Amino acid sequence: MNQKISFSSDYTKGAHPLILQRLTETNFEQIAGYGTDDYCKNAADKIKKKCNAQDADVFFLVGGTQTNQTVIDMLLEPYEGVVAAQTGHVAAHEAGAIEFSGHKVLTLPSFQEEPQFEDKTKPCYSDQVGKIKAEDIKKLIDSFYVDDNHEHMVFPGAVYISHPTEYGTLYSKAELEEISAICRQYKIPLFLDGARLGYGLKAKRTDVTLEDIARLVDVFYVGGTKVGAMFGEAVVFPGKVPVKHPVPIIKQHGALLAKGWLLGLQFDTLFTDDLYMKISQNAIDMAELLREGLQKKGYQLYIDSPTNQQFVVMEDEKLKELSEHVTYGFWEKLDDTHTVVRFATDWATKKEDIDTLLKYL
Amino acid sequence: MNQKISFSSDYTKGAHPLILQRLTETNFEQIAGYGTDDYCKNAADKIKKKCNAQDADVFFLVGGTQTNQTVIDMLLEPYEGVVAAQTGHVAAHEAGAIEFSGHKVLTLPSFQEEPQFEDKTKPCYSDQVGKIKAEDIKKLIDSFYVDDNHEHMVFPGAVYISHPTEYGTLYSKAELEEISAICRQYKIPLFLDGARLGYGLKAKRTDVTLEDIARLVDVFYVGGTKVGAMFGEAVVFPGKVPVKHPVPIIKQHGALLAKGWLLGLQFDTLFTDDLYMKISQNAIDMAELLREGLQKKGYQLYIDSPTNQQFVVMEDEKLKELSEHVTYGFWEKLDDTHTVVRFATDWATKKEDIDTLLKYL
Amino acid sequence: MNQKISFSSDYTKGAHPLILQRLTETNFEQIAGYGTDDYCKNAADKIKKKCNAQDADVFFLVGGTQTNQTVIDMLLEPYEGVVAAQTGHVAAHEAGAIEFSGHKVLTLPSFQEEPQFEDKTKPCYSDQVGKIKAEDIKKLIDSFYVDDNHEHMVFPGAVYISHPTEYGTLYSKAELEEISAICRQYKIPLFLDGARLGYGLKAKRTDVTLEDIARLVDVFYVGGTKVGAMFGEAVVFPGKVPVKHPVPIIKQHGALLAKGWLLGLQFDTLFTDDLYMKISQNAIDMAELLREGLQKKGYQLYIDSPTNQQFVVMEDEKLKELSEHVTYGFWEKLDDTHTVVRFATDWATKKEDIDTLLKYL
Amino acid sequence: MNQKISFSSDYTKGAHPLILQRLTETNFEQIAGYGTDDYCKNAADKIKKKCNAQDADVFFLVGGTQTNQTVIDMLLEPYEGVVAAQTGHVAAHEAGAIEFSGHKVLTLPSFQEEPQFEDKTKPCYSDQVGKIKAEDIKKLIDSFYVDDNHEHMVFPGAVYISHPTEYGTLYSKAELEEISAICRQYKIPLFLDGARLGYGLKAKRTDVTLEDIARLVDVFYVGGTKVGAMFGEAVVFPGKVPVKHPVPIIKQHGALLAKGWLLGLQFDTLFTDDLYMKISQNAIDMAELLREGLQKKGYQLYIDSPTNQQFVVMEDEKLKELSEHVTYGFWEKLDDTHTVVRFATDWATKKEDIDTLLKYL
Repeated sequence: MNQKISFSSDYTKGAHPLILQRLTETNFEQIAGYGTDDYCKNAADKIKKKCNAQDADVFFLVGGTQTNQTVIDMLLEPYEGVVAAQTGHVAAHEAGAIEFSGHKVLTLPSFQEEPQFEDKTKPCYSDQVGKIKAEDIKKLIDSFYVDDNHEHMVFPGAVYISHPTEYGTLYSKAELEEISAICRQYKIPLFLDGARLGYGLKAKRTDVTLEDIARLVDVFYVGGTKVGAMFGEAVVFPGKVPVKHPVPIIKQHGALLAKGWLLGLQFDTLFTDDLYMKISQNAIDMAELLREGLQKKGYQLYIDSPTNQQFVVMEDEKLKELSEHVTYGFWEKLDDTHTVVRFATDWATKKEDIDTLLKYL
Repeated sequence: MNQKISFSSDYTKGAHPLILQRLTETNFEQIAGYGTDDYCKNAADKIKKKCNAQDADVFFLVGGTQTNQTVIDMLLEPYEGVVAAQTGHVAAHEAGAIEFSGHKVLTLPSFQEEPQFEDKTKPCYSDQVGKIKAEDIKKLIDSFYVDDNHEHMVFPGAVYISHPTEYGTLYSKAELEEISAICRQYKIPLFLDGARLGYGLKAKRTDVTLEDIARLVDVFYVGGTKVGAMFGEAVVFPGKVPVKHPVPIIKQHGALLAKGWLLGLQFDTLFTDDLYMKISQNAIDMAELLREGLQKKGYQLYIDSPTNQQFVVMEDEKLKELSEHVTYGFWEKLDDTHTVVRFATDWATKKEDIDTLLKYL
Repeated sequence: MNQKISFSSDYTKGAHPLILQRLTETNFEQIAGYGTDDYCKNAADKIKKKCNAQDADVFFLVGGTQTNQTVIDMLLEPYEGVVAAQTGHVAAHEAGAIEFSGHKVLTLPSFQEEPQFEDKTKPCYSDQVGKIKAEDIKKLIDSFYVDDNHEHMVFPGAVYISHPTEYGTLYSKAELEEISAICRQYKIPLFLDGARLGYGLKAKRTDVTLEDIARLVDVFYVGGTKVGAMFGEAVVFPGKVPVKHPVPIIKQHGALLAKGWLLGLQFDTLFTDDLYMKISQNAIDMAELLREGLQKKGYQLYIDSPTNQQFVVMEDEKLKELSEHVTYGFWEKLDDTHTVVRFATDWATKKEDIDTLLKYL
Repeated sequence: MNQKISFSSDYTKGAHPLILQRLTETNFEQIAGYGTDDYCKNAADKIKKKCNAQDADVFFLVGGTQTNQTVIDMLLEPYEGVVAAQTGHVAAHEAGAIEFSGHKVLTLPSFQEEPQFEDKTKPCYSDQVGKIKAEDIKKLIDSFYVDDNHEHMVFPGAVYISHPTEYGTLYSKAELEEISAICRQYKIPLFLDGARLGYGLKAKRTDVTLEDIARLVDVFYVGGTKVGAMFGEAVVFPGKVPVKHPVPIIKQHGALLAKGWLLGLQFDTLFTDDLYMKISQNAIDMAELLREGLQKKGYQLYIDSPTNQQFVVMEDEKLKELSEHVTYGFWEKLDDTHTVVRFATDWATKKEDIDTLLKYL
């Protein structure tokens, strides 16, 4: 349908062919509903093993906003809010789904640095964009509790981070450890949104593993929708889900898929023979190729992103030309003659796609 | 995985092979997200044509409870509740999803008749089970407004019916017209839950068409999950959606699928060459075969169901034997030695499955 | 303003004169806000002593619906509902306040008996009207848990009873003990709405004391608005409030009065020198006088109510005549020529008011 | 109870004596409930006349947070949030009451200037503290609608301002007109929180009248709790309430007082013979006296507040000494040796109270 080559997002394609194959093979099996089947069990077991978290509770949900809303509602008391970067998905891009379930998002600034434009081949923002700092979390919690009137305010009840962030940036292991330590000191659960987790884990410049994440956070999800699954997110509570009855909560949020095995089957496939990691690697390789090409051509990168999303400053005239051949993500207007755009690679991007894109650039 | 033959529900299998085929064919197309793509547009156009409702608004959601919750929240003012049978899915089986979004379910009795057990081959309950009556709706509304204190009570703001009902029964066209007339008289929208709509439309003993439904109700959905789709429900507002911005409401309920085209593609397939109706026919044919077989063998039907769900009174000993070969739906304990069970056929049930089941019976 | 004598409800007058006096005396004291003052502390201490529940947590809220909503929200998990009589205030007369905070009311029938009209001087309904039975609660809980699909349904998470009920009837001590035993067996908190508690405690035909209530329920409130206070309800958790931070929950419900001491001062007055009980006695004495008068005149009582609300069957013509001199509560139309009306006495009703009413009757 | 003289807040005392007198006079009148009485009608009429808004709808609620929550819920669609200063009461000090009813608070910075400490007798922050700017509101709305993904974000659905603000500052008529113009241009209702409205209207340095407010905003409230009433806030919709049934919405929020006339009677009194304005004048006169005294003694004012709240920078040692005789509002720690405190005057503050306070300072 779409003749142009698309780099507009990482959810423009279906599923890895192995997933389609297994969906086809199992199509006429008769399977129990609501995630009580063996495919879900197998997928959960493989994920738990890969995370080195044998006692984890694993749930399979359909999409990101739904998952964020449901998980955060499980973590919070009614009078608590979730701490997040003001650029965090839950704060900015979920149509108020968190507030719909009664909770405030307590925002922290994600970065304050000014962009730097001297060397055009270097990114103008650092790799801190979109992240929050342990010290800022601590400051927020401390200043909350010293306030005499804090019982008239929203309690910080959980911390939300995304990894990669909405800007493609990543936390270092040291940063995650600091945030985790603060959260544990104050007994506030830490939730990591891994909608693009594979692309974070396979980045060249990361020292964070899946095991690290399972060790350091209280709940996270392994994103499927953007990383090779047709749809689905695998929620992992390494130290057990904190509610007595998760099923009715999931159902109440409209998030309990009748044919739950469709999710189990997909994650079972992705966690067999390391498929999830292998296809994540492809997105990173293609992003690195693109990054190099952009820098070679003298383009100004907007953010120092080590993952599958690359943000570039484009001249508006050049962009107009490009848009006849390529679809991309509009990010923001930088000035009267420049625009920031996003190119996203994914598990299925091919080398020739990058070549084509670079040709038009 | 499951060696037994299953009649436990109509959501135990994947999707019609044509759907799998089209998912495979389009797998590497790059398609715009959130339902803004052409597959969704085409599917909506075909559904509107089939409904004879050219101006309808059509949305594609993932599952039934999610759809009920989202649609009802669109229909109601905050101080309004939805009128439903006390056996209705929204009243009884959605873990409080309607209340989660702030609304009361105002229940009406669905039937009062006593079961009759004389002729074992006739159903013991009538085909009114699970339904509500126009006159009861009218009575509820009237008695609400005559109460001086009605502003201290929950306003009846919408009427919910399921067709087929949770008991497999159907409204006649005359009944639907009566209910519709009441709703229009009081300007209260009528919502028809069509999770199993195809199986209702193809029942032998129905005079209700898709066009009738589109003409008589304010919103309904064409169930996909239970009728040949892998997942998905097509919501149709024949006379336009009553909210200014449906997208953020859908998103807020965690119901906006990123890869919305997956839904469009499935309904496009189901509404091409009348596939939806053809495969619905199969479930009905198989259910009729089963029904005849059961009656021939002298089984007591529990409800006079003209659709794909058949409810049978079984002796517990017989049932124990059966359960070694067949899975079925437990419905309720009737007395110390009898149980009501449900056998559900679907779009993919084969004649030999019925033969096998009847053999074990 | 109103020349007619009024028996329409028990919240038509201001406050007991001693309360007005103390409000006046303390008017220019400068007192700490939000219930942190000494008047609240003193009132709580007196209530705890009177209840023989030294470790109780006591909170002062403004009105009944607000109290019901806030307390029930404290008791329930998100996936739980509150069990109540279908005639209970929370089920029928709070404009959906419970659903507004996300919870379902799980209704039980309050009575099934047919009215008896033989002896006109006897009540046609018994003293069971408006009440729920321990065995019905048990049945509801049991049948919930035996259902394989109960995780798709609303969990029974608390039981709500009113005492007196909305129909003026009372639980016996034996009945309360049975209900309490069931609730404790299933670890489901029992909440007693005491909006008219004083009138229940001073009824002639009751064997229930305030101590009994504090011993048998998990939370109840001592109604002030209808029993001598200008406004206010004293919520008592005999065995501690079950949430970590009650204040933000109360505030979130808009129920935290800035000048909290106004509530403390009123209850301090009501629980000094047994004032609450003494003025409650007056309402009962007047109701008994009225009841006798009605029976002497051959009126048909509608309900066998031992408290301050008396329900009478009136001929419509007689009623029209009466309404020129008296305001009363319309209850329901009984048939084409009869209406049920309510006459409510209160802490301030005088013997001559009853005489006047009886004269017009 | 409290031997110290208190300047800690403006809700530490009861009610103006005339209110107590009328409560006493009318105590045994029998009055209709829920605000349907003549006192409410009279009070509403007087307020409408004073506002020059004959067609206004007026409601009487109990407290501030309750009023903010209820009004904002009336103004917003489910997918809309309310724009407010990040220091606004709804954003910071209501325990998440707005989110509890499902809505996001979209915050704008209230001020960015750095404090200036050169001349100790001048305030270190300007009179802009706590306010939002028309241009910032416009920017927020514009940038919302230009975003391609705005349907995935929270729509700006109302604007909330407080006047006086939480910092005692005031909008000028020109500023209000600009904000009003922006709101009307975008058809977004403007809500003015007047918890301390009287103190704003009688400030020396204001050009804003009650009529101006009624002309420029879509809903506001006349605060009673802090301005001479025992409790209560009068909500005024100059151009009609925007919901079909306000009563059940108010009830659902637990905000419908049974004895509604208590509110009507108080506001009837306050709006007879200009009492509200006269007693507001007293708080301003006393605040000006205090301000002069502070400046004479060389104290550093923290904010340039023209109303009844005065914020002062105190040396911690001095403060310790003071706290033996005076209670004040702790505002914030400024540095290691200084603290910002708030002194609030009110309708009942006496000249000798100010003299005493200044003596201890």
